[in-house]
Amino acid sequence: MSKAADDEGVPGGRGEPPGTSAQQVGGEAAGGKLPSKLSASSFTPGWTKVSCPCCASERVEPLVRVKLGPKVVPETKRWLIKLIGAPQKDGGAGLLAHPGEDATGNTIMLSAPRCTLLRATEELGLCKIYHNNEMEAFAYNDRDNFRDSDNMEVFLTLAERQYIIKYELDGLRAQKELRIPGMPDSRTLQKRDNIWQKLGQAGVIVDTFPLHNPGKLKDLSKSWYSGNQLAQPLDKVNEYFGSSVAFYFSFLDFYTWSLLPPAILGLFIAYFSISGSQQQEIQDEPEPLISGHMLQAVFSMLWSTVVIELWKRRSSSLSYQWGTLNLAERFAEPRPGFHGDLGVNPVTGRVEPLFPEWKRDLRMALVSVPVVGLFLGLVVLGMMCFYWAEARVQWLHKDWNSMISQTFLYVPSVLHIVYTNMLANLYRTVANSLTEYENHREESAYDNHLTGKILVFTFFNNFAVLFHIAFFKQDVPLLRKRLASLLIISQLVNQVTEVVIPFLVDRFISAPHRTESEDDPEEDKFRNQGTLPTFPGLFAEYIELLVQFGYLSLFSCVFPLTAVLLLLNNLTEIRSDAYKICKLFRKPFCPPVASMGVWKVAFEVLSFVSVVSNAWLLLLSPRLQKMSQEAGMSSSNLLMGAVMVEHVLILVKVIMAALIPDEPDWIRKKREHIEYTSMQALRQYTGF
Amino acid sequence: MSKAADDEGVPGGRGEPPGTSAQQVGGEAAGGKLPSKLSASSFTPGWTKVSCPCCASERVEPLVRVKLGPKVVPETKRWLIKLIGAPQKDGGAGLLAHPGEDATGNTIMLSAPRCTLLRATEELGLCKIYHNNEMEAFAYNDRDNFRDSDNMEVFLTLAERQYIIKYELDGLRAQKELRIPGMPDSRTLQKRDNIWQKLGQAGVIVDTFPLHNPGKLKDLSKSWYSGNQLAQPLDKVNEYFGSSVAFYFSFLDFYTWSLLPPAILGLFIAYFSISGSQQQEIQDEPEPLISGHMLQAVFSMLWSTVVIELWKRRSSSLSYQWGTLNLAERFAEPRPGFHGDLGVNPVTGRVEPLFPEWKRDLRMALVSVPVVGLFLGLVVLGMMCFYWAEARVQWLHKDWNSMISQTFLYVPSVLHIVYTNMLANLYRTVANSLTEYENHREESAYDNHLTGKILVFTFFNNFAVLFHIAFFKQDVPLLRKRLASLLIISQLVNQVTEVVIPFLVDRFISAPHRTESEDDPEEDKFRNQGTLPTFPGLFAEYIELLVQFGYLSLFSCVFPLTAVLLLLNNLTEIRSDAYKICKLFRKPFCPPVASMGVWKVAFEVLSFVSVVSNAWLLLLSPRLQKMSQEAGMSSSNLLMGAVMVEHVLILVKVIMAALIPDEPDWIRKKREHIEYTSMQALRQYTGF
Repeated sequence: MSKAADDEGVPGGRGEPPGTSAQQVGGEAAGGKLPSKLSASSFTPGWTKVSCPCCASERVEPLVRVKLGPKVVPETKRWLIKLIGAPQKDGGAGLLAHPGEDATGNTIMLSAPRCTLLRATEELGLCKIYHNNEMEAFAYNDRDNFRDSDNMEVFLTLAERQYIIKYELDGLRAQKELRIPGMPDSRTLQKRDNIWQKLGQAGVIVDTFPLHNPGKLKDLSKSWYSGNQLAQPLDKVNEYFGSSVAFYFSFLDFYTWSLLPPAILGLFIAYFSISGSQQQEIQDEPEPLISGHMLQAVFSMLWSTVVIELWKRRSSSLSYQWGTLNLAERFAEPRPGFHGDLGVNPVTGRVEPLFPEWKRDLRMALVSVPVVGLFLGLVVLGMMCFYWAEARVQWLHKDWNSMISQTFLYVPSVLHIVYTNMLANLYRTVANSLTEYENHREESAYDNHLTGKILVFTFFNNFAVLFHIAFFKQDVPLLRKRLASLLIISQLVNQVTEVVIPFLVDRFISAPHRTESEDDPEEDKFRNQGTLPTFPGLFAEYIELLVQFGYLSLFSCVFPLTAVLLLLNNLTEIRSDAYKICKLFRKPFCPPVASMGVWKVAFEVLSFVSVVSNAWLLLLSPRLQKMSQEAGMSSSNLLMGAVMVEHVLILVKVIMAALIPDEPDWIRKKREHIEYTSMQALRQYTGF
Repeated sequence: MSKAADDEGVPGGRGEPPGTSAQQVGGEAAGGKLPSKLSASSFTPGWTKVSCPCCASERVEPLVRVKLGPKVVPETKRWLIKLIGAPQKDGGAGLLAHPGEDATGNTIMLSAPRCTLLRATEELGLCKIYHNNEMEAFAYNDRDNFRDSDNMEVFLTLAERQYIIKYELDGLRAQKELRIPGMPDSRTLQKRDNIWQKLGQAGVIVDTFPLHNPGKLKDLSKSWYSGNQLAQPLDKVNEYFGSSVAFYFSFLDFYTWSLLPPAILGLFIAYFSISGSQQQEIQDEPEPLISGHMLQAVFSMLWSTVVIELWKRRSSSLSYQWGTLNLAERFAEPRPGFHGDLGVNPVTGRVEPLFPEWKRDLRMALVSVPVVGLFLGLVVLGMMCFYWAEARVQWLHKDWNSMISQTFLYVPSVLHIVYTNMLANLYRTVANSLTEYENHREESAYDNHLTGKILVFTFFNNFAVLFHIAFFKQDVPLLRKRLASLLIISQLVNQVTEVVIPFLVDRFISAPHRTESEDDPEEDKFRNQGTLPTFPGLFAEYIELLVQFGYLSLFSCVFPLTAVLLLLNNLTEIRSDAYKICKLFRKPFCPPVASMGVWKVAFEVLSFVSVVSNAWLLLLSPRLQKMSQEAGMSSSNLLMGAVMVEHVLILVKVIMAALIPDEPDWIRKKREHIEYTSMQALRQYTGF
């Protein structure tokens, strides 16, 4: 690539013909079509200057858009641009900023120079390809030995570049007491205040979001969901959306393929049980010793363990591939919402807010746990009221048998659904405040605790009824009916609410307001992205998978076609989820992550519960009950047998989980190699 | 300390008055009493020269004695001394050697110069006190910032200094094909042969063992077992015997104290059940709702979890205190017995033998597991034969009722004991070969796999009968009787075989051959130590504790006084074990370790099994059986209740284990600090 313009120093003038290399800016975008490759990367000139010569580049790629409040005066905007552009040692963010079409507009475009990107790559602990083709933890001092470290658009993924901008903005702290120019004095920043957070509270900044890259997006969608392809372009997803999104889709992919064995088994069992019952009607043949029900119960227990263990291995390979094996979040600055007394962090030796662990534990034990327990109690209470009301209404209907009592029959269900929904919404707010109150230092810890809270509740909400039917009512046919209807209805409802409604809203309500064509100026396109709704996160998607996995591993033995239905559902789910994230929402900021985090634990827990549930359903198996009656076995002996089977299978599960290593051997060696080299470095260079 | 003799260069001559400083040697030991402090540290001159000036010290402390074979010629001895003394870069061990009384004797005394000690400290990954009073991973380059790093006798513990000598000897490898001078040509060393191992096989070296330090030993025994003290001098034990021994005694100590709550509970229950039954005889009062049996069952389950979790925390504090938090065994040379094709280690980049993981896994799966299974089967077979024979003999006796049949009654027991013992001995040999065949790279992995194998067998051997009585015969009174007799007899037998017999042997058989007085020359004292038996390791001691812990946590609810008996036993056990290791055996080499290793896992597993066993014994509780009969509960409902209690308690246990962090908060911070600084060092200094 030509570096001829390195010494020019000043941004190229307006109106230069496209394709001319000019420092820090490509060509003019307004007026005249540009080659589509350049379209997202070129922009009008006017970027802030970079502070070091090595960062000067031929063109600047707009990565993030900041939307200012309507009342922000140009003075404030100028101050903000200066702050963003100032080097980090002067308290700035070390980024590149551009005022949009003019100084009075409500937009600031952001990009990042090479040095800032590289330093942040080191700080985040990302691994990149070393000159020997191995992944190594990136070190700024050693940057020249890393492949492509001179070309940021290859070296870092788009998602990483955009996340780094957010990371730098979130890290902005007032170095002294500070008046915001053009704002009333009441909005003074205190020393060490988180600037970006405070500016958001003051209404200066309304929105900060990463920009789509239309060319790459088109390319991605083509290989992702437009065709009939079976494999997902996971590396491209990681490149474009970041590792947290890519991990979700990888898991969805992995899990969908792993549905094949239970689906085939389910089809077999369904086929033979139908043909078997037909034969019986004719010939009254002896029944086979093991029924499909029992076979499926044992299969489910082992299958769920194997799937989870293999996923752990796959997950760590992906993490290596995507360079997130060695993340250093623990050693980074605390997340913006964290507060505490200033002190010296014993780990890093930096001055930052500290919050004692025991205080957090105390808050969790004395506040969070009881509140979560209360909500779980409310779920159970709701369920009990529902059963009570239903019995009551049935009785009334029997008594009256009129049209009015007929409609009354639906009242408990409706009330229960309304109650459950209201409770879930209330709980979500409460869980947010609780987790905020727990004051976690790291973003990932915050996420995990929030997710964990909502997860427990959702799990309870979804499975309480099924468990009640299975364990208390002990009514296998009802369980089967309920499971089938849940599977079919909830999948339909999900697909509709998740895709069809947003699609319609987008097409018929929002879209007319933002007619867009290829001829539009770049800036309008960027502006249009701001009108899309914010991406709601992957929580709902994961919950959907977890509930699916639960239906399958916990109860599938009573309804053998579960896996088949889920397989069909997921093949469309992959496409609809991909479509949704590409088209219907703004691009989200995605921090680099090393795994699915707390979700992995949730799936693991479910796979243990499945042993208990399957052992129980095995016991309820009609064939077994019949057989034991014929053999004159007492019910307590049968129960004893089931308990023994359960214990043996739990033992098998634990041994399997212990024996299958969580990461492949070669990953372990890579990780140990990184540990070894850092140990060596420490020994070599301390004390000098 | 005076360093006046630094430039003298030659060892001081014989016969110098004691106390005169002379390079590399203290004073003359033979003839004339020395102050006891110096006695172990001074020796006749004639040490090999040190290669670097910083290692020159005023006196050399003999640490390890090597005993040569009877046929070794002086030429071989001279070669060996030269090899030991040569610097490591020339293929030597970098140690100090002394030929003993004369060049023809069969003794070589070893010590280590400062540089070798410090380099090995770094290689082993030991933590030492930094100038800021924190424990930091020792770095040779940074040695001056570590406290006392100029005085090896303070900086390193005696155990560490002695272990380092073994470590260096084990690391000796032939740099090229080599003839051993004075030995037949058939004994040629190949390139990369482990020299020390080969010399052992060739009969050149008969024995290598660390020397006792009489002064320190006297001091230690005084504060350890001579008085009435309750606390053990654990730091002193670590200093003298090393961390693996210190961990055993720490656990013994911790566990003994944690026996207090169950002992008190047991006394209460025993008291009330006696007084209760007396009252009942008189007044026929109503029984209390919860019996001691039930109370103790639930208590045992929770107690065992809490003890293990708290021990983990204690263990990590001790590991920090003893500087073994950050051991680097994985990165060191493989253990001497390891073999494989030469290749580049992907972790460290060194050329060394490599052995693929999958091959080891295959060997374990296809050879070790079936063989171990076979032996477990033989145990069960033995038990079944015993029961069969016993029934048979009883029947015969009933039939005949003569003196001969009376004696026959004992035959099955005797045969079973003989069989069990033979099987155990055979198994031990087999387990050794199996573990050797598995070809583990690290000493600790070897130890853990060997221990694991023997442990499974011993556990089976000890508990199979009790489980059989509890689960199949369901005979609580028999279980109680058996447990009481096991507790009392096995403790008595253990104490006798472990202490009394070795003591008597030592006193009346070995001692007359090695009359020793304070006036004896130092060398004779060293020589006498060689006649003591080798320390058999801590395996038997740990097994004893594990079996105790098993009796208590698995079955104690049927015999409430278990904890009391164990407490009394352990108070003497501490003393007898301490006496044994100090007086009755040679001092062992102890590698620095960070925890109890596989034993921790064994105790944890036992604590899980205890939930199952206690839930079952709860169900068998006579009171519960009676109550449920009176209440008209079906036995299957009762069983269901027990299963539910079991599941809830397992859940509680898992949650408790997850919630109680395995290391105290401050240790976690220290560990993270070490990680952080090494990450920083890596970033700072790579690529230069």
